[in-house]
Amino acid sequence: MQIRVYYEDTDAGGIVYHANYLNFCERARSEFFFRKEMLPIVDGAHFVVRKMSCDFISSAKFGDVVEVTTQVTQMKGSSFELFHEIYRDEELLFSSTVLLVLVDNGKVKRLTKDIQNLLNSLFH
Amino acid sequence: MQIRVYYEDTDAGGIVYHANYLNFCERARSEFFFRKEMLPIVDGAHFVVRKMSCDFISSAKFGDVVEVTTQVTQMKGSSFELFHEIYRDEELLFSSTVLLVLVDNGKVKRLTKDIQNLLNSLFH
Amino acid sequence: MQIRVYYEDTDAGGIVYHANYLNFCERARSEFFFRKEMLPIVDGAHFVVRKMSCDFISSAKFGDVVEVTTQVTQMKGSSFELFHEIYRDEELLFSSTVLLVLVDNGKVKRLTKDIQNLLNSLFH
Amino acid sequence: MQIRVYYEDTDAGGIVYHANYLNFCERARSEFFFRKEMLPIVDGAHFVVRKMSCDFISSAKFGDVVEVTTQVTQMKGSSFELFHEIYRDEELLFSSTVLLVLVDNGKVKRLTKDIQNLLNSLFH
Repeated sequence: MQIRVYYEDTDAGGIVYHANYLNFCERARSEFFFRKEMLPIVDGAHFVVRKMSCDFISSAKFGDVVEVTTQVTQMKGSSFELFHEIYRDEELLFSSTVLLVLVDNGKVKRLTKDIQNLLNSLFH
Repeated sequence: MQIRVYYEDTDAGGIVYHANYLNFCERARSEFFFRKEMLPIVDGAHFVVRKMSCDFISSAKFGDVVEVTTQVTQMKGSSFELFHEIYRDEELLFSSTVLLVLVDNGKVKRLTKDIQNLLNSLFH
Repeated sequence: MQIRVYYEDTDAGGIVYHANYLNFCERARSEFFFRKEMLPIVDGAHFVVRKMSCDFISSAKFGDVVEVTTQVTQMKGSSFELFHEIYRDEELLFSSTVLLVLVDNGKVKRLTKDIQNLLNSLFH
Repeated sequence: MQIRVYYEDTDAGGIVYHANYLNFCERARSEFFFRKEMLPIVDGAHFVVRKMSCDFISSAKFGDVVEVTTQVTQMKGSSFELFHEIYRDEELLFSSTVLLVLVDNGKVKRLTKDIQNLLNSLFH
């Protein structure tokens, strides 16, 4: 998924504000669903980030076009783990491992077999 | 209401990103309710901006503390109008007239007498 | 210009946060420059919004794809005016008239003939 | 540092958008400098997040007041590590370990003894 860096994404340091790389990854995750004409919402339950680790390797700046890649790296009964990388051309700018759970009204829900199949098909 | 300008509020131009002055005004509107230990939500209906005009007079920058003022300038059956100004010390940076309506599930709701009294007391 | 609505664009009211329509318009303005392989920056001077009026007619929600249109409606010695509309399919959600100036270090700069020609060619 | 959750901080899931907890932590870091009447900028160099790990334990929602705590956990020649926690009353919502470096024009700079002393005094 390609993303353009606009003014709103940058800060007074002249580069993309650090938290906005997380937004870019979230867009890539959502886009997988949208491209299947689905929403990433299951019976009113939303996918929620539970843990995340991030490496900020280099910086994108205003006007850059970056590419976000997404891989499923783990799938458990009630959670799954993604690995995102953000590139500008061939240069790696950012990488992140993200653990997601499905939450309904504050409660973690089991991923049914159906959902797991769906995620597998969506993310591979 | 005093608001500090953080990195997230600025852009690569080195100043506060224009749309963020609207956020500052919205915080001031919400804060009136919070300070009464209320939410700006009426039976599930949210206040929604219907019209707005804005003058961007000068710019706030990273680290500035600005002050947002709010006045009620009009109240009708189903809408009310606010006038916000944002100052840095004595210098006017921004002003805006905002027309708000109460919307429930996409439908504009009449402001009951109770709500009107409430708004009057909150905003004066 | 087509824009997808992601989680980051929405708020707890379930719809796009009002100030984010301004971001969408700014993306469309910047994109005109990017598509010419230019930045909307002239010798270190940035285009800055001076005045704006907005009509919020209907709401976009998570997952929607909206389209932003841009027209030049006025061009003066040191400013120009744009008219943006945001549609979801054929439905008008938002319109805005925006007056922009070119600012260098806090000072408004005259738009040279070259810049005016450029803007004319970019925006028509 | 106390932070109020406004509409802009939430998303259509009804809770604070995950990346915004990072903004809250950044505000707390910047505020240490502001309260000393300083900017977190050293001769044009900005502090930049290099690595981060985050636990999202529970969610803040519109109207909540949260508190961000900050501790220095490590200091090296050219980097330092902070540990942030975000609480709503006594409930831990979020924790994060953040590695920061001082960057000037894309290059990591050594933290001088002066800066180290300053950081030590600021953050303890």
